[in-house]
Amino acid sequence: MNEAYVPTAGKIMLVGIGPGSVDHMTKRARDAIAEADVVIGYVTYIKLVADLLEGKEIIRKSMTEELDRAVSALEAARAGKKVALISSGDAGVYGMAGPTFEVLFQSGWTPDDPVQVEIIPGASALNSCAALVGAPLTHDFCAISLSDLLTPWPTIARRLDAVAMADFVVALYNPKSGRRTRQILEAQRLFLRHRRPDTPVAIVKSGYRRRQNIVFTTLDSMADADIGMLSTVLIGNSNTFVRHGLMVTPRGYANKYDMEEGGATREGERAGRSLSTGLLGWLETLQAEHAAGDSIETLAARHRLPADYIRDTLNEPVEAEAAASEEAEA
Amino acid sequence: MNEAYVPTAGKIMLVGIGPGSVDHMTKRARDAIAEADVVIGYVTYIKLVADLLEGKEIIRKSMTEELDRAVSALEAARAGKKVALISSGDAGVYGMAGPTFEVLFQSGWTPDDPVQVEIIPGASALNSCAALVGAPLTHDFCAISLSDLLTPWPTIARRLDAVAMADFVVALYNPKSGRRTRQILEAQRLFLRHRRPDTPVAIVKSGYRRRQNIVFTTLDSMADADIGMLSTVLIGNSNTFVRHGLMVTPRGYANKYDMEEGGATREGERAGRSLSTGLLGWLETLQAEHAAGDSIETLAARHRLPADYIRDTLNEPVEAEAAASEEAEA
Repeated sequence: MNEAYVPTAGKIMLVGIGPGSVDHMTKRARDAIAEADVVIGYVTYIKLVADLLEGKEIIRKSMTEELDRAVSALEAARAGKKVALISSGDAGVYGMAGPTFEVLFQSGWTPDDPVQVEIIPGASALNSCAALVGAPLTHDFCAISLSDLLTPWPTIARRLDAVAMADFVVALYNPKSGRRTRQILEAQRLFLRHRRPDTPVAIVKSGYRRRQNIVFTTLDSMADADIGMLSTVLIGNSNTFVRHGLMVTPRGYANKYDMEEGGATREGERAGRSLSTGLLGWLETLQAEHAAGDSIETLAARHRLPADYIRDTLNEPVEAEAAASEEAEA
Repeated sequence: MNEAYVPTAGKIMLVGIGPGSVDHMTKRARDAIAEADVVIGYVTYIKLVADLLEGKEIIRKSMTEELDRAVSALEAARAGKKVALISSGDAGVYGMAGPTFEVLFQSGWTPDDPVQVEIIPGASALNSCAALVGAPLTHDFCAISLSDLLTPWPTIARRLDAVAMADFVVALYNPKSGRRTRQILEAQRLFLRHRRPDTPVAIVKSGYRRRQNIVFTTLDSMADADIGMLSTVLIGNSNTFVRHGLMVTPRGYANKYDMEEGGATREGERAGRSLSTGLLGWLETLQAEHAAGDSIETLAARHRLPADYIRDTLNEPVEAEAAASEEAEA
């Protein structure tokens, strides 16, 4: 494009390219790469978008060089260039967004700087891998990285134990590598403290890429599976099931509707309203149990919640149910 | 397109449309809607993709009618139609994927059925909202829905308490509605058992849509903010900070590198290798502490991990560090 030279400020675009198939990139992600003078990224991600890189300056980096990538991006942007700093999945999920801001702030950058920063969201590995195996997420879920290159092991272990106890669906990122082989065993050990050994697990390698491979297994066999740095491990919650080769976590409709009887609403429940065991109903139950003589400690054990939380909750007045607004509820 | 009539099986495409801006839809999501004869979705999502719907049969549903949407999709697909069943964000995250499979299985459908099912991943609200406020995710995170319409409150409370204790970044979905006003207060109460009152919180309403609004606040003021059904609440972890109007969660580089001294590697640490407090280093420390006389209970309290886990870990032989493979580590 021929234009009179007009000096412009550079720009850093933190692009989440999704799982790596061009079909699964957003329009903004493609446009950002098209707009860029310089594209920086881990060599594997650069290859995934090779078709979009003609005529651009490419800076390929190795793993563990995230800070270098951010520094290179800032240097190029300060030289007036438009930089696409690419991450697989979503740039904000174990990607380049965090490290880039850390480097920018360290360099004295502020949002008033001529160099502007844009983050372009994408579907993270947990979303892409989930889409390939069915509907394992559906309900409350977590992402935990088993990489201890930057995080102490006790922090990771504490997180694994907490979410196993609280029955989340869990996606393990960076589950295993040539050097880190034991972390996945420790994760399994911690999960088995709380979960059934036959809890469904799906392992997706290279989702939406040429060497895609999907394995269904169970918690007690998880550590024996072929897992590497290109794998995402999805551990179901206590309601997750596998049927006909699809892993599905229920949303909870069975709590309200009799799914076998044409979806009739169960007694005591109402469509569009909180469950009878939702917050307000549960508070009434709690009050009644306490009034009937159950101690705080008994209630805490029964509901598996902290005693001080039970105590504070009982001391809080139960307000009249808020007037329904025009807004429908989900 | 004029073609000789060839009877084809219908198809259900579960499409995650992302935050709602056409720029942030993937190519596959757009193509799926273009391909569809019938588009089904919650009325708000139908409006977001209105430009793509010319000539198609549209079925608009209200909130809480997720099972109805899935039933309508199956009916249309059995009649030979291509159906796009749309969800905002990612169809697998509190979206239509789970409910659709539940309805399909209930109807006797299997993957061998002529009606095929495809899930098209998209960026979920937590990714989009995070992209608008900086880099709040970066490290281990969770999504929890505060809706108790299908989930008992103690289950939700237990999850909130667990992730607050284990220091996750947390995205709250369905945080508040006209009827459900107290759940956000309970969430705050549970978080304050573990987290500093000044923990950064970002509240993003209608991200990437016309009425987008972003508020930064703190944990102790979170419940006073304007929160509704179009809001996603992002609660930082104990290292998350807000600087220059951007919310950033560190990845942990400061554990390994002296960020103020040009990124020099700290003593005892090595680039590309586990931290000295990573699994193998921590196991050595644990063995040494135990050999020096610390009891299992003392170690459990010090490292804030379950005593039985400490005991099992001490009993497991520490294998020689696995031979490094060609594969680089992150």
